[in-house]
Amino acid sequence: MSGAEAPLKVALGGLGTVGAGVLRLLRENAELIAARAGRPIEVVAVSARDRTRDRGVSLEGLRWYDAAPDLVGDNDVDVVAEMIGGAEGMGRRLVEAALAKGKPVVTANKALIAVHGAALAAAAERAGVPLTFEAAVAGGIPVIKALREGLAANHLTRVAGILNGTCNYILTAMTRDGGEFADVLAEAQRLGYAEADPRFDVDGIDAAHKLAILAALAFGRPVAFDAVHVEGIRRISALDIAFAAQLGYTIKLLGIARRTEAGVEARVHPCMLPHDAPLARVDGVFNAVVVEGDFVGRVMLQGRGAGAGPTASAVVADLIDIARGHTTPVWGAASESLSHAPSLPMAAHVGAYYLRLMVTDRPGVIADVTAVLRDEGISLESMLQRARNPAESVPVVLVTHATGEAAMIRALERIAALDAVMESPTLIRIEPA
Amino acid sequence: MSGAEAPLKVALGGLGTVGAGVLRLLRENAELIAARAGRPIEVVAVSARDRTRDRGVSLEGLRWYDAAPDLVGDNDVDVVAEMIGGAEGMGRRLVEAALAKGKPVVTANKALIAVHGAALAAAAERAGVPLTFEAAVAGGIPVIKALREGLAANHLTRVAGILNGTCNYILTAMTRDGGEFADVLAEAQRLGYAEADPRFDVDGIDAAHKLAILAALAFGRPVAFDAVHVEGIRRISALDIAFAAQLGYTIKLLGIARRTEAGVEARVHPCMLPHDAPLARVDGVFNAVVVEGDFVGRVMLQGRGAGAGPTASAVVADLIDIARGHTTPVWGAASESLSHAPSLPMAAHVGAYYLRLMVTDRPGVIADVTAVLRDEGISLESMLQRARNPAESVPVVLVTHATGEAAMIRALERIAALDAVMESPTLIRIEPA
Repeated sequence: MSGAEAPLKVALGGLGTVGAGVLRLLRENAELIAARAGRPIEVVAVSARDRTRDRGVSLEGLRWYDAAPDLVGDNDVDVVAEMIGGAEGMGRRLVEAALAKGKPVVTANKALIAVHGAALAAAAERAGVPLTFEAAVAGGIPVIKALREGLAANHLTRVAGILNGTCNYILTAMTRDGGEFADVLAEAQRLGYAEADPRFDVDGIDAAHKLAILAALAFGRPVAFDAVHVEGIRRISALDIAFAAQLGYTIKLLGIARRTEAGVEARVHPCMLPHDAPLARVDGVFNAVVVEGDFVGRVMLQGRGAGAGPTASAVVADLIDIARGHTTPVWGAASESLSHAPSLPMAAHVGAYYLRLMVTDRPGVIADVTAVLRDEGISLESMLQRARNPAESVPVVLVTHATGEAAMIRALERIAALDAVMESPTLIRIEPA
Repeated sequence: MSGAEAPLKVALGGLGTVGAGVLRLLRENAELIAARAGRPIEVVAVSARDRTRDRGVSLEGLRWYDAAPDLVGDNDVDVVAEMIGGAEGMGRRLVEAALAKGKPVVTANKALIAVHGAALAAAAERAGVPLTFEAAVAGGIPVIKALREGLAANHLTRVAGILNGTCNYILTAMTRDGGEFADVLAEAQRLGYAEADPRFDVDGIDAAHKLAILAALAFGRPVAFDAVHVEGIRRISALDIAFAAQLGYTIKLLGIARRTEAGVEARVHPCMLPHDAPLARVDGVFNAVVVEGDFVGRVMLQGRGAGAGPTASAVVADLIDIARGHTTPVWGAASESLSHAPSLPMAAHVGAYYLRLMVTDRPGVIADVTAVLRDEGISLESMLQRARNPAESVPVVLVTHATGEAAMIRALERIAALDAVMESPTLIRIEPA
């Protein structure tokens, strides 16, 4: 290592799990990182809410700022690392202030990049400084670098991934143990795999933030979070998981973005995947992303999607790139080269569907349901009915051939309104391997 | 795209499958590549053995050189792409000439980098130019970028991979259909998945070239091909695959490099992997690499390891990096920061072993065999004996607990010399998930 090189001086906003992890990694692997970066990387200033809290890392010798945006006023700082989180508030203010001052920014903040990334990228381009966020998607897996650099020669056609470890943990446990969502969620919360307020995770919002970022990078256009169709996993029942297994499928929450001639489709929802699909085998808290390109074919990356260690690994990789002077435009190309392909509405989606109804077990019900499907031009691949007790409602499962979403939604509304249909039907999209 | 930027001018040596693929990719995705690279990337000069052969791509307007090293004398060339192959000969001469002249080099040549990479890296460092070879390992999978940049903050402890698509195709087919090696190889040759001369692939040499490169990058030390222990797949029989399945294992040819306090272990050989190990599920011609780091945990990358498209994707990714001015030292750090950890001999390996003997089915044979193991301090986890016909030799399978390789080899020699042991025993190492 050439110790004579000037260090890269980092201001670190946020000392939660991730921020403290970055500080620890930069210290524990300092020599290795300096060798890889060609110069030392040192945190010189920090900001957090509580100065006195024990974080397991010493803050001695670091300049302290009570308000994160004030880090930008520290003149002896080369780069700002934002580890605060949230689409609004202190994290956003810190990043905006840093770019306004012409400081490179590294962030782990997926919500911020998903929601305000287009404007922030424009600000970074104006300032001529990098804005990087490897840690924002899939933790330590270098998927952003793969999309922006490693696979950069390809027209990418599809990106799909398991992007939320909490949902994958819950669905894996439900599949393994046959439990219901609420019970498994409670257990995941006890074990620390789900937050006390699990909405961002189980309602698909966190995965949608990440998918919006992946889609922007894959297709070279500014991030468009509002265009992502989002559904979570609350409605998945043990019954659906059992039926899926019987049909040869595994249920996963996926984020999927596709580029077609018409535009870009981006959606987060539970999917039925064939058992032998690569993503069907990614279990527990792991994340995985499949990328398809015109020359490279299909590439899959998988690893730990969260946690202090993997996230810090990604943040420091970004810092090493900046230390080496490697900068790439935020969405992979300068703004004048970005695509303006339109976002496609979910109604334009075409695919196969699994539909589960709870019906009263009497003659003519199936005829009524299939008549609705026929009216909407929807053809059936298979049907399963498991009668249990004539006095109770029984599940009926229908699997369609490729169908337009708009027709499916119309059919669903009409089916839900039938007298014999007892609960709101469950619709799960089937995704090819 | 900013068309005003000066193009990066490429001299392309070698117009076989890979070279022609690079030419085609640079043309078909020219606009995308220029946007990602910040400037156009154009092949301006080429060299190959036969000027008249139809390669499916036009050579019109390209300057032609009969001898590849003469490309370096072309003054209007920014970077040399070597797609000739082979550790010696024209490919090596082209790369050496380019570095001597201070030209950046991109190569897909794993044999060259594995065998002469240490000297070539030193030459590149002296010249102050990049020498890149993403395409040399695992085709289109950006694994070199992941090791050198994406995971650069980590002390890596282990890299393991399925690095040869031909071997993986053969083993997958043997596992699926129960065929013997020679028959499946012949079928693979008919289908184009194996070369007419398959030695480099089936004897493990190709995988060893790639593993040597991965180990150098993972552990930050000059490549050391001679230190890689190499065994191929010729000795794997349908019987071993059947026993493996019975024991819960899948047989794969793996390249494995580990960093321990004592040094670096690097080995290519058939392994028994637990069925549910991530690498056990990578089938057919696919490649996959698992990397383990101190902060990131375990990351796996998988995709197509060969073919014109994936290889061209990797070559052009390297060209884009050079066009952007992103250069990283060959082994991830400048020479003065490289590790000089010693290479460990195979005799130092410790692990579990599967041992299959063909023995005459008479009393006392097992006692003789287990006495040898006891003498060498080797403890058994399990034993399987399937008697078929007292007149024939029968297979006996022994699975050991963790054992030192040196003791195992000594025991193997003594067991092979027993009268009742009819064929040379088969030894397969068991690798944990």
